[in-house]
Amino acid sequence: MSTLVSVAELGAHVGGEVTLRGWLYNKRSGKNVHFLEVRDGSGTAQIVVGAGDVPKETFAACDALTQETSLTVTGTVHAHPKRPGVVEVHGTGLTVVGRPTGEFPISPKDHGTDFLMDHRHLWLRSKRQHAILRVRHTIIKAVRDFFDGRGFTLVDAPIFTPNACEGTSTLFETDYHGDPAYLTQSGQLYMEAAAAAVGKAYCFGPTFRAEKSKTRRHLAEFWMVEPEVAYMDLAGDMELAEDMLVFIVERVLAERRPELAVLERDVTKLESVKKPFPRITYEEAIAVLARAGNPAKYGDDIGGDEETLISSAYDRPVMVHRYPREIKAFYMKGDPDDERAALCVDVLAPEGYGEIIGGGQREDDLEILTRKITEHRLPLEAFQWYFDLRRYGTFPHAGFGMGIERCVAWICKLPHVRETIPFPRMLNRLSP
Amino acid sequence: MSTLVSVAELGAHVGGEVTLRGWLYNKRSGKNVHFLEVRDGSGTAQIVVGAGDVPKETFAACDALTQETSLTVTGTVHAHPKRPGVVEVHGTGLTVVGRPTGEFPISPKDHGTDFLMDHRHLWLRSKRQHAILRVRHTIIKAVRDFFDGRGFTLVDAPIFTPNACEGTSTLFETDYHGDPAYLTQSGQLYMEAAAAAVGKAYCFGPTFRAEKSKTRRHLAEFWMVEPEVAYMDLAGDMELAEDMLVFIVERVLAERRPELAVLERDVTKLESVKKPFPRITYEEAIAVLARAGNPAKYGDDIGGDEETLISSAYDRPVMVHRYPREIKAFYMKGDPDDERAALCVDVLAPEGYGEIIGGGQREDDLEILTRKITEHRLPLEAFQWYFDLRRYGTFPHAGFGMGIERCVAWICKLPHVRETIPFPRMLNRLSP
Repeated sequence: MSTLVSVAELGAHVGGEVTLRGWLYNKRSGKNVHFLEVRDGSGTAQIVVGAGDVPKETFAACDALTQETSLTVTGTVHAHPKRPGVVEVHGTGLTVVGRPTGEFPISPKDHGTDFLMDHRHLWLRSKRQHAILRVRHTIIKAVRDFFDGRGFTLVDAPIFTPNACEGTSTLFETDYHGDPAYLTQSGQLYMEAAAAAVGKAYCFGPTFRAEKSKTRRHLAEFWMVEPEVAYMDLAGDMELAEDMLVFIVERVLAERRPELAVLERDVTKLESVKKPFPRITYEEAIAVLARAGNPAKYGDDIGGDEETLISSAYDRPVMVHRYPREIKAFYMKGDPDDERAALCVDVLAPEGYGEIIGGGQREDDLEILTRKITEHRLPLEAFQWYFDLRRYGTFPHAGFGMGIERCVAWICKLPHVRETIPFPRMLNRLSP
Repeated sequence: MSTLVSVAELGAHVGGEVTLRGWLYNKRSGKNVHFLEVRDGSGTAQIVVGAGDVPKETFAACDALTQETSLTVTGTVHAHPKRPGVVEVHGTGLTVVGRPTGEFPISPKDHGTDFLMDHRHLWLRSKRQHAILRVRHTIIKAVRDFFDGRGFTLVDAPIFTPNACEGTSTLFETDYHGDPAYLTQSGQLYMEAAAAAVGKAYCFGPTFRAEKSKTRRHLAEFWMVEPEVAYMDLAGDMELAEDMLVFIVERVLAERRPELAVLERDVTKLESVKKPFPRITYEEAIAVLARAGNPAKYGDDIGGDEETLISSAYDRPVMVHRYPREIKAFYMKGDPDDERAALCVDVLAPEGYGEIIGGGQREDDLEILTRKITEHRLPLEAFQWYFDLRRYGTFPHAGFGMGIERCVAWICKLPHVRETIPFPRMLNRLSP
């Protein structure tokens, strides 16, 4: 009797008879032998079908097999004659489960990105996409394990929010039983409430931006993790972000080297991601830019190009802290030692990837917060519940947000975030 | 020097001097002593402040402390004089961080649910809500660990979907850069594509229903886990659901007994959740209902009341399989042995909780699927990519979806799902 196994389990069955269920990924045929490459999601295996080893009609049937035929194969497991550590299956039986109705749309030849994205549901079957999916999965699990292991409580933030706190221009709106509702851009305000309840909180879910931008770093729908910690200051916040990134990279290196190899990722770049990360002030960052010939001056926002310039100067993530208050959000706490600066930090990924984390200490003084919201011409009414966090036992606290897709793009070294998420949603992309 | 610790860590510091940072949860005062109950998110600790142990002004300041004052306390850790295993802190210093601007809105007295929901951001600070949040967190982690440990790949389904495949009546719609987009109600169709790619896939994210229903089991926004497995049949699907639920309950019992005690949960009911779960056909379920005097007959949908009746008859989840095809979705595969029935299953939680899981084997025949979609008067065009999964190597596959909030409600034995999610969204509830 043969044992039902996955490709990933084959190595434990050398000498045994097994049955695999999967899809034909590739085929090479000689006069008396077919080499079938079969994938089942756990990996791909070579099935050697010799003319003398199977009934005549089975051997003949192999001629007609096309890419992505679903099938079950029975055979015995052998060590590969030339490649140590690799096994192959000598086929003794084969059953076609589903025969393609036509040629599989994605062939080994080059396709344009639009074509591949139109066929995203089929493109996911490729080795490269498997590798990215698995690295993404490992990063997400690492993030959760990191916070779970440090006593954080998961507090899911709502997706529907009642107010367009910072204007509607980049918000997706929906009709919520007669009232407008907006899709969340960040769970931060809710995490501040959660930190007051459970001390250390995080949320991890999809967030939405209706931006018209069409860059390699933007998605309309992306996943974000947002920790928030009571009684933590900016220095603690930076240490938390640093520890998290080191944890993630270590986990990926420990578990996903085969996938990084598929992606032809230079892992030495990841191996250098160790503590401590450089910490430079915004003012120092401006000086770095000046030395590189960039015209940015104090008070300017640092855009994608500038981030690329700065992050390229380091072999590991760099933390740029204390941006000018004017260019940062109303909830950032001012630096008591520098009236121009906010207690905030952006973490820029190396190799030119730029910002993957933004965070900082939150304004915890009710009066200052009220004044800033008024200055920003935001609707005070919408913030009453948020003010309650300052009214009833206000407390220093800090946190950050990390966009998962940018982190995946960096770790996999992908040129664009669109491949970092299974079904990307962008300006001109809403399907499949 | 005192050590900065959390309440949860106090037990390891008996005899030592510590500093805690948190909020005043409760206070009892005598002439020469204050008993402060301080919470910091990790737990609550009793701080004994004796008149002779602190400066006069500190002792006097304790008089003015009100609920939810944020503060830091320094003192030495002692075993509680009467309660074994419990520690308390003998205060030597106290600093007020943030004094409430008024009385904390939520006092120990009874408040109506609407009032508490309006103050959800503050209500989360209560012991009962902490307990629910932690059980929810543990359930979510258990679900992910379960699938991760079995070789599943996380494949996040998109939130924005381009088509109203089954009508717009319960869909939230948004303007997606000029085109209508709908918020997902299920990631299933995408998981079918993922199963063809990675064999075993799951997604876990928020899903949305714009239903007008106002019941104890409905939320507009709820989290759902949806596994999908290639080459799995209905029997395998039921076993997977059974294994997952046993895994979840075991994990909660192992880690969250203190929280279940806060909720006054009868844990013996959870301890009986063991394999095998009873499996009854829909037809048998109708017979159970008939014996209980319910008028349901073959072909009727089984509603909440009927589910409560059926599930009350068992001490563990019961699996009702093979519902009539007519009352189930188009993608359900027909039972080859019963032309009336579909290869589907609903898992009903015990103690009257009813359906928490729905799933089954999917129709994998392109022709039958096309015919059913036509019969259901659904737009064929919207399903072309879904048909591709049958065109290119179709394969038997099955999966299910579990609503996390219903699972939390059952395990915590809550009367309503609204407390199972940090910030619930219901028919009349969009804030805070």
